[in-house]
Amino acid sequence: MENSKPILQAFPMSDSPLSLPRGFRFAGATCGIKASGKPDVSLIVSDHPVVAAGVYTTNQIVAAPVVLSRSRTPSAAVRAVLTNSGCANACTGDQGMEDAKSSSAQLAALVGCDESGVLVMSTGVIGKRLPMEKIRTGIEQVHGKLAGDDAAFVDAAEAIRTTDAARKTETCELALGGKTIRIAAMAKGAGMIAPNMATMLSVMCTDASITQDDAQAILTRVANVSFNRVSVDGHTSTNDTLLLLASGTDEPLSGDALAEFEAELTKLAINLAKQLVADGEGATHVMQIHVFGAESDASAEVIAKTVAASPLVKCAITGGDPNWGRIVSAAGYAGEPLQPAKVSLSVCGQAIYENGTPLDFDAASLSRTMKGQPQIDVELCVGSGEGEATYWSSDLTTEYVRFNSEYTT
Amino acid sequence: MENSKPILQAFPMSDSPLSLPRGFRFAGATCGIKASGKPDVSLIVSDHPVVAAGVYTTNQIVAAPVVLSRSRTPSAAVRAVLTNSGCANACTGDQGMEDAKSSSAQLAALVGCDESGVLVMSTGVIGKRLPMEKIRTGIEQVHGKLAGDDAAFVDAAEAIRTTDAARKTETCELALGGKTIRIAAMAKGAGMIAPNMATMLSVMCTDASITQDDAQAILTRVANVSFNRVSVDGHTSTNDTLLLLASGTDEPLSGDALAEFEAELTKLAINLAKQLVADGEGATHVMQIHVFGAESDASAEVIAKTVAASPLVKCAITGGDPNWGRIVSAAGYAGEPLQPAKVSLSVCGQAIYENGTPLDFDAASLSRTMKGQPQIDVELCVGSGEGEATYWSSDLTTEYVRFNSEYTT
Repeated sequence: MENSKPILQAFPMSDSPLSLPRGFRFAGATCGIKASGKPDVSLIVSDHPVVAAGVYTTNQIVAAPVVLSRSRTPSAAVRAVLTNSGCANACTGDQGMEDAKSSSAQLAALVGCDESGVLVMSTGVIGKRLPMEKIRTGIEQVHGKLAGDDAAFVDAAEAIRTTDAARKTETCELALGGKTIRIAAMAKGAGMIAPNMATMLSVMCTDASITQDDAQAILTRVANVSFNRVSVDGHTSTNDTLLLLASGTDEPLSGDALAEFEAELTKLAINLAKQLVADGEGATHVMQIHVFGAESDASAEVIAKTVAASPLVKCAITGGDPNWGRIVSAAGYAGEPLQPAKVSLSVCGQAIYENGTPLDFDAASLSRTMKGQPQIDVELCVGSGEGEATYWSSDLTTEYVRFNSEYTT
Repeated sequence: MENSKPILQAFPMSDSPLSLPRGFRFAGATCGIKASGKPDVSLIVSDHPVVAAGVYTTNQIVAAPVVLSRSRTPSAAVRAVLTNSGCANACTGDQGMEDAKSSSAQLAALVGCDESGVLVMSTGVIGKRLPMEKIRTGIEQVHGKLAGDDAAFVDAAEAIRTTDAARKTETCELALGGKTIRIAAMAKGAGMIAPNMATMLSVMCTDASITQDDAQAILTRVANVSFNRVSVDGHTSTNDTLLLLASGTDEPLSGDALAEFEAELTKLAINLAKQLVADGEGATHVMQIHVFGAESDASAEVIAKTVAASPLVKCAITGGDPNWGRIVSAAGYAGEPLQPAKVSLSVCGQAIYENGTPLDFDAASLSRTMKGQPQIDVELCVGSGEGEATYWSSDLTTEYVRFNSEYTT
């Protein structure tokens, strides 16, 4: 697997052996949607109907597969997740919905389940129809390759990539109530966005037993502190989809065991989310911004997001510039409660602004530190209360602009 | 006057002769705040107490001069506006306010007015104290140079520049009720922002007679459709200040004449605002985005601003890329009412998306058109009502990133 991005090496996938949950089979195949000839159709099938929860883009312009999958989750009877890369099937009008439904129906017949048991995801160019002839062949192919081994899981994760510089997978095992439970997750996204492309997609499979309601509630909370706390450029796509499939059939988790499961799922989702940011187009640093002393956690999140989205702040991170005026002023226009005389800031552990007053610090030394680190830690106190939030963002480089402004018809 | 930016030449100042309002004197001087040795202190003094209105940054982190001037407007007794460039006097704690007050007191003594008759503005580096010895000398100097001629006005406008590639002034004459009224305005700002710098500043002087209340109401409305509708990178500075001084002493304008005055002031403010965008750091195009069919004008403004702020849209404009998916999806995440099936879009007059469905168009031809034009017109209908708004933004170039990420201690 190629990985030519130095910054990505600082946010690697766990290097422990894969540990796949029982009850799922996986496959990836190439059906020719991508001109590059890379894998472009991915499938996950469960051995029996499983619990499924979904979190989707908040964009009002939503792709057909999002509309379809959203209508089918949460559920206790999902059998398959079909993903294609290379074409987002977004802004494709009524025809786009027909295409999504027809793919779903074809797969349901192969799997032997109701159409509502199939979830679909698409990622790639906006505004182009799915090449249905290729898709139909691809569905046949990928279904024929289903297997439960590590190689099949990796194939499935490879086939959802678009401009990602690396595959993104995480698996883990945890012991809950004397039993071993496994979680295996895959994600794609070169940041939240890609040129001409859209979509951050992720599927998390587990053999834990969870009720449909718990699965949906947990997934929403997990998304809120992981995938919803990262940004490359603040452009929310039309296709974003995060799914959780749970295949366990014994007594559903509850109480402490359920909380422990959620904590592990959260950790894993944050790891994947940070990999997305590190893989952000042109990124050379990940900025981790922790806002505290806010009126509420929600207020802290808005402030962190505003700082993370400022092109001036992002350029300062790129250049290793401890330009604290940009960070403090970005917090000031976030529209959230903030006590100017109580604002304090540190960057990479160096205090540089305290209670509204600049401190003396060695800017050249701090700049050297910033340049040498893959992750820049920003700690910002806004002096209004007890709320806090952590947010992750890529920096903004000339490479990002070049990648997104070069156009050749 | 140097002007090395091709895009700025497409948004020139009016080339009609300057026409200065009666009752004002101007001056610019060099007191050594800027290492470059360029003019850095600017003064406007009225012959008698005049009406003054102000509109200031909405950032909660505000510079000392903003706090001071804001407390002194609206007013019917202003005599002077003192501006320094090269130092923003922002995030400077209590000492910053002392420095602003002491400058204001020194000038009030020279002019022979109450301290509250002096307004102050600063622009430049955040977090550094004003060099008070230089400022004190500068105030003496610039006061000694006051004059009512065109050269003095130009000197005053030159001395408020920071990274601006060109001076920004506009003057006009209009006949209202048998009398000739003049407006002379200056502005600075390389977009809303500059590296390590802050501030968009503008002062508009007129010899019209306007009540204090009308002046404030008009200026607020003017700001809302001009300087508040432009963005280079969405980073609201700590120092933004817009002032209107009106020296007329006869019967205040009212009814149609007042409306005509406001219309002229608006036109002039929009011209200056577009010059700021064209002078945006690294800018090669101005995008004019007109959103219509929105639920309200306010809703249209939010959608237009969201599209204008999207780095992906800005990169597409840079590259002459008719990448409509980026524009439509940005509108979709603005959080305002939008009917996906009624969304339509045209770029440079070419219809490319209609009622939620892509149209066939010659993308190569449209790309050539976009590349050849300084202003890219985007017309976006969101199908929810009658609201509309126009917004101006610069594009995003590698030059912007280079300018804002290069750091040398």
